[in-house]
Amino acid sequence: MAPEVFTRWAARTEATLDRLLPADTAEPRRLHAAMRHATLGGGKRMRPLLVYAAGTALGADEASLDLPAAAVELVHAYSLVHDDLPAMDDDDMRRGRPTVHVAFDEATAILAGDALQTLAFEALADAAAPAELRAGWMQSLARASGAGGMCGGQALDIDATGSQLPLEALQRMHSLKTGALIRAAVRMGALGAGADEARLRQLDRYADALGLAFQVRDDLLDIEASSEALGKTAGKDVAQAKSTYPALLGVDGARAKLGQLAAEMRAALEEIDGDCSLLQALGELAVRRDH
Amino acid sequence: MAPEVFTRWAARTEATLDRLLPADTAEPRRLHAAMRHATLGGGKRMRPLLVYAAGTALGADEASLDLPAAAVELVHAYSLVHDDLPAMDDDDMRRGRPTVHVAFDEATAILAGDALQTLAFEALADAAAPAELRAGWMQSLARASGAGGMCGGQALDIDATGSQLPLEALQRMHSLKTGALIRAAVRMGALGAGADEARLRQLDRYADALGLAFQVRDDLLDIEASSEALGKTAGKDVAQAKSTYPALLGVDGARAKLGQLAAEMRAALEEIDGDCSLLQALGELAVRRDH
Repeated sequence: MAPEVFTRWAARTEATLDRLLPADTAEPRRLHAAMRHATLGGGKRMRPLLVYAAGTALGADEASLDLPAAAVELVHAYSLVHDDLPAMDDDDMRRGRPTVHVAFDEATAILAGDALQTLAFEALADAAAPAELRAGWMQSLARASGAGGMCGGQALDIDATGSQLPLEALQRMHSLKTGALIRAAVRMGALGAGADEARLRQLDRYADALGLAFQVRDDLLDIEASSEALGKTAGKDVAQAKSTYPALLGVDGARAKLGQLAAEMRAALEEIDGDCSLLQALGELAVRRDH
Repeated sequence: MAPEVFTRWAARTEATLDRLLPADTAEPRRLHAAMRHATLGGGKRMRPLLVYAAGTALGADEASLDLPAAAVELVHAYSLVHDDLPAMDDDDMRRGRPTVHVAFDEATAILAGDALQTLAFEALADAAAPAELRAGWMQSLARASGAGGMCGGQALDIDATGSQLPLEALQRMHSLKTGALIRAAVRMGALGAGADEARLRQLDRYADALGLAFQVRDDLLDIEASSEALGKTAGKDVAQAKSTYPALLGVDGARAKLGQLAAEMRAALEEIDGDCSLLQALGELAVRRDH
């Protein structure tokens, strides 16, 4: 069960996003409405929770983390809008609702994704924080998002569709596609608390294990769960012949892998001074979640 | 005729972009190759030239402007990749070569555009410049690029396709779609020279006139020039029933408008201390260009 603080942080994230996003009563209304549809009212907010958990564990106050938390979620939201497009994963449902290109149209979905990415950087640039910190946040987010991170991982995923990747290549793909942004979330929180490079590297170890666990659990859910529980189409991995952990390790092997990753997270957090119990709780949620 | 310095600045831009872009020998190769195809070996480099011209007019040295010049071109290049997609303008040729989704595929074009936008911010975040300046550059670029700038203008353009906009709405659309990024280019150059807010506002007046002149000339060229000379499909505006200045003002009226905008640029630059002759020359090029 999630601590109440996660509910509060998710609500802070929703409020910050609502404030950052342009009003859908202002022109161009269709673009603004699509940006809001893509971002508000759903999602686990795992990345913002990681920003808050890492930042507060090291002494930052919640309010100072609102913008980095929202920025990382904006990048995540933009990536989902573009990944769902017909030319990419061609998905009609997301978070239990029609995807952006279904609810609006393809051109609007492309533009809304583009503008959400920009808004992530604009929010950080405008933050009431020292320039050194704002630039550090933007650097972490950019490095995690582009060709050397999330976009590169998505390209590797597309390249691999229809063939079975060996385990090492699968891990590399996921470490870019989902891992890089999770690592950036943890780093951005820690940067908000003034963490030094050594502390950031300790947290990377936790974040890398969490990112991988998140993906292994995702692969298992795609097999185990219904579309209704997921809020998106289940069974897509098999239908699209995607490489997955259960396909490579078997279902039991993938579950065992999750156990190893949970132990790795615990070990990484034990090295860090400060109360890391909420980071620990988020790691457990990633391993155990059912949607 | 363009001064030699513009040729040198264009070459600096090409070299900086080549250095920033990931090698197409590294995985994911297809994504990297698409990013390079979209960015290198073509284009007028108008926006980078504006960064260099504004920055050096106010005393910055060329090398310190390489990254803002490249960053604004990366945003321009990403916007062209996405604008050319089948769901948007559906264009097959750009800069005399196949567009990215034609040379590669749609999914790769979407991702390459996404990663080019990210690279713009990453380049600025990594610049060897004070954090205050890096954050200021990123702020200018983000404000110009998103829903309140270029993406918003593109959305207004799509909304208006098939109907004739009144002049005021057409100007507003272009001031966002192309004007905002041109203004950001001039501002980013001036920021590199330590310009204050009053100076930035003087330069905005020049940049706004230049951005509008660029668009009026573009509309005239779409009527007057061949596809071969343009390096992209001519006559698209009429075919797509787009609102244009010649349609609203007549061809002679659009030419007269160009003359007024040239005078406005001269007047704006006369208010500025410093040698603005290269900014003036760029304004004249925008008014007189034949492709």
